[in-house]
Amino acid sequence: MYGALKELLGIEHPILLAPMGNVSGGALAAAVSHAGGLGLIGAGYGDADWLDREFQKAGEARIGVGFITWALARNASLLDLALAYEPEAVMFSFGDCTPFLPAVRKAGAKIICQVQTLAQARGAAAAGADLIVAQGAEAGGHGGTRSTLTLVPAVVDAVAPTPVVAAGGIADGRGLAAVCMLGASGALIGTRFFASEEALGHANAKRCIVESQGDATVRTRVFDIVRGYPWPVHITGRVPLNRFSEQWHGREDALSADLAHQQIRYREAEAANDTDTTVVFAGEAVDLIDTIEPAAAIVARLASEAYRLMGIPSTSDAKIGSVR
Amino acid sequence: MYGALKELLGIEHPILLAPMGNVSGGALAAAVSHAGGLGLIGAGYGDADWLDREFQKAGEARIGVGFITWALARNASLLDLALAYEPEAVMFSFGDCTPFLPAVRKAGAKIICQVQTLAQARGAAAAGADLIVAQGAEAGGHGGTRSTLTLVPAVVDAVAPTPVVAAGGIADGRGLAAVCMLGASGALIGTRFFASEEALGHANAKRCIVESQGDATVRTRVFDIVRGYPWPVHITGRVPLNRFSEQWHGREDALSADLAHQQIRYREAEAANDTDTTVVFAGEAVDLIDTIEPAAAIVARLASEAYRLMGIPSTSDAKIGSVR
Repeated sequence: MYGALKELLGIEHPILLAPMGNVSGGALAAAVSHAGGLGLIGAGYGDADWLDREFQKAGEARIGVGFITWALARNASLLDLALAYEPEAVMFSFGDCTPFLPAVRKAGAKIICQVQTLAQARGAAAAGADLIVAQGAEAGGHGGTRSTLTLVPAVVDAVAPTPVVAAGGIADGRGLAAVCMLGASGALIGTRFFASEEALGHANAKRCIVESQGDATVRTRVFDIVRGYPWPVHITGRVPLNRFSEQWHGREDALSADLAHQQIRYREAEAANDTDTTVVFAGEAVDLIDTIEPAAAIVARLASEAYRLMGIPSTSDAKIGSVR
Repeated sequence: MYGALKELLGIEHPILLAPMGNVSGGALAAAVSHAGGLGLIGAGYGDADWLDREFQKAGEARIGVGFITWALARNASLLDLALAYEPEAVMFSFGDCTPFLPAVRKAGAKIICQVQTLAQARGAAAAGADLIVAQGAEAGGHGGTRSTLTLVPAVVDAVAPTPVVAAGGIADGRGLAAVCMLGASGALIGTRFFASEEALGHANAKRCIVESQGDATVRTRVFDIVRGYPWPVHITGRVPLNRFSEQWHGREDALSADLAHQQIRYREAEAANDTDTTVVFAGEAVDLIDTIEPAAAIVARLASEAYRLMGIPSTSDAKIGSVR
C-alpha cells in the first residue's frame, strides 16, 4: 500500500510535507526528510533569494520543492535555480505544468502534480506525472471544492498504476490510515506541520492554528484580493475566520472598491503580526492540532498511529521482531 | 471498532441506510436490514399515509425511521405513527430534536442524531443520543459545509464514549474502511443505495446517479426554493448539476422573483420524470457508482471489501475458521 512511495521516493514513512509558501522552508523540509518522510520547500510566489537561502538551509537532506505553477510561469528561471540543488522531486500545483516537465525529467527529479478534480488527475497522468496528489477542499490554503474522501478513490481508479497521495484534512494517524484505505500511497500534510517548531511563520500564526476550530474555517478569496495575488477565481484559500475575513468574505466587491485603503491597513497588520487581520492559512483539521511540536515527533507519531490502525508492523517493531 | 453497532443495534455489518425521503421506503429498508445492516425509512416532509404504507411494506424486518426534525415539528403526530411500529431506532436531522426524545426513549427505540458540526455533536451527546451520525458536506441531499474526513475524528474525540457513524461520501468498501480508521463505528450510506433495485424513485433518477460525475455536483438551494420547502439557509442540498441548477444556482434572487412561473415548469418536469429539470439528490461519491444493484449485494460487497482492507475476518470467514 505505502510501498509505492518507498520505491518512488526512497522514503521510510508515507508522509510528504506540503510545500507551503513562507512556511515550508529548508529547516522544516530537512526535518521531515530526516524523520523518514519527504520535505518539500514551498517556492510560493517566487522570491529567488528566499528560495536559494532555504535550499541552503536544508543542507544535505534529500528534499523536494513545490511551485505554484501560474507563479512559476511568470518567473521560469526559478525552476533552474531549484534544479541546480538536485531536488528529489518537483511538485506543481494550480496551472499548466507541462512546459516545465522536460527540464525536471532531464534533471532526474520526480514529477509530482497536485490536482483538485478528477479531470485534472487524468490530465496529469497523461502528462507523465510520477505521482499525483489528490487535494481535497479540507486543505488549508489554496484549493478547490471536491473532498478528499471522494476525490482520492476516484483518482486512484482513474490514473492507475500511477501512485496517488492524498492531501487535505489529514492531521493525525487516523487520517493517514483513512486515506491509505482509500487507495492512496500516503499523505501530503500541511497545517499539521505549520504547527511545528521548524516551520517558518510567526508564533502568532502557529498559536492561531492551535486555537482554531474546524467549525469556523472558510474558503475565501479576500486575502488574495487584499494582497494583490491574481489567483484563478475558482481557487480559494481556506482560513480560520478572523476579523478581516468575517468583515469581507461574501463582500468581495466592496473590498475591491476600498482596496487602496484596506491594503494600507493590511500591511500595518502584517508588520504587527496581527492575525486578527492578516491571513493564516489552515485546514479544516485544526480540531486535531493542539500543540506545536518538532516535525520529527509529528512524523513519528502519525506513522506509528497509522501503522497500528492498519495492522502493519512499523520499521522499529520489525527490527525488534528480527532480533528476537 | 465496528462492534459498537452490533451491540447497540444488533446488526451484523456496520452499515446504515440513510433515511432518504421518497427513496428509502419499506422495501429498501427491509432489504438493507435483511442483509445485515440497518435500514431506515425516510419520513421526509411528513406524509402520514406514505409513512404508514412504507412501514407496512417493511413487514417484520427490524428497521428504523429518520425524520427531518423541522418538518416533524410541524406534524408531531408522525412520531407516534412511527413508534407504533416499534422501530429499532429513530434518527433526527436538521433541527432541535430534544422535544421528541422522551417519547422515543419511552418506546424503547434507540436515538440517532445526525449533526453537521462539532458544536452540534456536543449538543447531541448532551441530549442523550445513543448514536451520533457525523455528516460531511460530501453527502447527497441536505447537509452542511464540514467534510467527513475532518468532522468524524473531531466528533469521535468530543463525544466519547458515544459511538459515531460517518455519513457523506461513502460508496464503497474503501470509504467504509476509511471512516472506521477515523474512529467511526460504521457508515450511514445514501446515494449508493439510491442506485439500488429496491429504492423508490424513478429509473431516470437512478440512471442519473450512475452517469453523474463527482466533479460536477454542487450544494445548492435552488430546488428547495422552487419546491417551496423552508430549509434553513445554511443547509443546502448536493445534486449533480443539471439544466435547472446550472441556470439558477448563484441566481437565487432571480429564481425567487420568477417563482410562480418556474414552479409551473418544474411541476410539468416532475410529471414527465425529466431529470434535466427536477432534482436528483446525490453525493460527491457518484464516481464510484456505476450499476444499479440489489441492496443486499451492496451491503455484502461493501462489508467484505472493508473487512479485507482492515484485516478483519468476516463473519463467514470466522465461521469457516471455527469449523476447521
